[in-house]
Amino acid sequence: MTGSTLDRDFEKSRKRIERCLSRYFDGRAAGLAAVNAWGADFTRRIRPFVLGGKMIRGGLILIAHDRLGGKAGPDAVKAAAAMELFHSAFLIHDDIMDDDPLRRGKPSIHVQYAAQARRKGINDAPGFGRAAALCAGDVLIFMGLEILASLAAPAPDKARVLSLFGRELAHVGPAQVQDVYSGRIRRPVSRAGIYRLYAFKTARYTYSLPLAAGALLAGAGQSAIRGLEDIGLDLGLVFQIKDDEIGMFGSPSTTGKPVGSDVGEGKKTLYYFYLSRARGPRAAALFGKRRPAAGDISRLNALLRTEKIPERIEADVRRIAGRCARRIREASLPPSMKTALSELLASSLKRKA
Amino acid sequence: MTGSTLDRDFEKSRKRIERCLSRYFDGRAAGLAAVNAWGADFTRRIRPFVLGGKMIRGGLILIAHDRLGGKAGPDAVKAAAAMELFHSAFLIHDDIMDDDPLRRGKPSIHVQYAAQARRKGINDAPGFGRAAALCAGDVLIFMGLEILASLAAPAPDKARVLSLFGRELAHVGPAQVQDVYSGRIRRPVSRAGIYRLYAFKTARYTYSLPLAAGALLAGAGQSAIRGLEDIGLDLGLVFQIKDDEIGMFGSPSTTGKPVGSDVGEGKKTLYYFYLSRARGPRAAALFGKRRPAAGDISRLNALLRTEKIPERIEADVRRIAGRCARRIREASLPPSMKTALSELLASSLKRKA
Repeated sequence: MTGSTLDRDFEKSRKRIERCLSRYFDGRAAGLAAVNAWGADFTRRIRPFVLGGKMIRGGLILIAHDRLGGKAGPDAVKAAAAMELFHSAFLIHDDIMDDDPLRRGKPSIHVQYAAQARRKGINDAPGFGRAAALCAGDVLIFMGLEILASLAAPAPDKARVLSLFGRELAHVGPAQVQDVYSGRIRRPVSRAGIYRLYAFKTARYTYSLPLAAGALLAGAGQSAIRGLEDIGLDLGLVFQIKDDEIGMFGSPSTTGKPVGSDVGEGKKTLYYFYLSRARGPRAAALFGKRRPAAGDISRLNALLRTEKIPERIEADVRRIAGRCARRIREASLPPSMKTALSELLASSLKRKA
Repeated sequence: MTGSTLDRDFEKSRKRIERCLSRYFDGRAAGLAAVNAWGADFTRRIRPFVLGGKMIRGGLILIAHDRLGGKAGPDAVKAAAAMELFHSAFLIHDDIMDDDPLRRGKPSIHVQYAAQARRKGINDAPGFGRAAALCAGDVLIFMGLEILASLAAPAPDKARVLSLFGRELAHVGPAQVQDVYSGRIRRPVSRAGIYRLYAFKTARYTYSLPLAAGALLAGAGQSAIRGLEDIGLDLGLVFQIKDDEIGMFGSPSTTGKPVGSDVGEGKKTLYYFYLSRARGPRAAALFGKRRPAAGDISRLNALLRTEKIPERIEADVRRIAGRCARRIREASLPPSMKTALSELLASSLKRKA
């Protein structure tokens, strides 16, 4: 990111969300510790995990709320804090499902729990690690519910915001199931299916939901909210495709994940789609090889470049970005919000980590 | 249960909750199906699972609300429906962690998903089954949030009810971690630790939370709510201890679970505690044998009877039941609520399934 106003807004938002989450975790620590030692462990382990996120989603709620002239600052911060709790829960649960060893540059939560259990000489430490991480994710979701419960917005607005969270986040589940499923099959997937997966697994909950939640709390009308949801979808698709690119060509030091982890999980990304369309599914069989070696990854990268797959995907990105820019231009939104959305689009297009 | 008024109230409550949940699932079906085929599958598979529950927890919300003279019937039904969604999510997640094959007399959800994946020739069907069930549980929690969002109660009451749900349900996580952990260690556990586990893993969320939520919606005061939470804790402890008894001595046809499943999971129940105290931890080593044979279970049962462990546990139950009866007598609650609580206690003491 550059030193734009938007970056400064994200930075300020992050601090506001951090303060809210810190206060919340402080307030819950004694209650959790009263349950048992795992409750105390939860606060020590999960609090820094949540606070260590980039807080893009929470930041989007605040930026949308503020730039739409909202007067519900404390509510927007709470909604942002809840958003980050839900997102952290998804990351923890996703890492269990994908058996991803790293997250945010550290061992993922189920790996941390397994390591701790191993030190205590437990049977089946990996199974325990998965179970404990599953519970930790559930706890975060209920904490998000508790924070949302405290919104001070007028009853109809509060109902709409909470219901928006519930509905959008419920749609992530089937998308995640499809993601796990497609990683375990060798059948081709349709491009439409991939885009639908990207929409529901990432784009809508990363961009559409936060933008809509911030707008709702700012008292925006239905048409502005719909517009933001559509723009959010496009922003999220660009974000996800760039995420795939970074996963394929990025370095672990910037991604915080081992190189080729998407490949090893057999994720049916657009790379997989275009490569199997160009060279048949056999050529794309490297996708899905468990723990691919560095050589496998460089061979795959070379093959992708030979087939000009990155260029093909770049064309998709340009098409979506063009639609997004048009939607931003045509939306009935205040200029400062339009500027923020354009900058978001530009920074997603440039992102390297 | 006998043909008491309370039983009829549970039966009526069940129908009201079913109607609410059916309407809710009907309303969400198209949205889920628009995500992908797993979204449509979710409605087909998970809806009957939720509707097939005994709905004790939801029923308690309605009974508390109605007998405390509440006028918020539709809200109480919604809270009850949300409660059943949260509970179903916990069952699905617990069955993954314990690898329990059966639930409510049918294959548990992760086993169902694994079987379906196997028919489709997927790699690692059990891993997929666990992942899909994990997602299904998450979806149910967010659905519960969406239903709670629609409560029409005045803002402060609504905030209190939602916050109560969030806080109490967040405390189940660390208790569940301890439950999984204690199943994987061979060290003795303290009786206080077992009781704390029972309190947070079962008693508070099965009884205290529903009773308090119903009372809150009925506009009851703080002291009545506190009283109900304490009574609920006792009711829940009796319920859990009887659950252990049924798990140890009951038949699969009434429990819907294979005999000895708690034993096979090495659960540190009061049976384990008293047996290892009477005969040393080696004698209790049968607890934790994976897939114990019928002979193992009958040997364990005989050992427990020789050591008079059931009688020892019965003494605990009587002590808690006595405290509970006293709390019911002394509480400031309307007579019909006291009658319901006394009947709940009596039926928990008698329960065989």
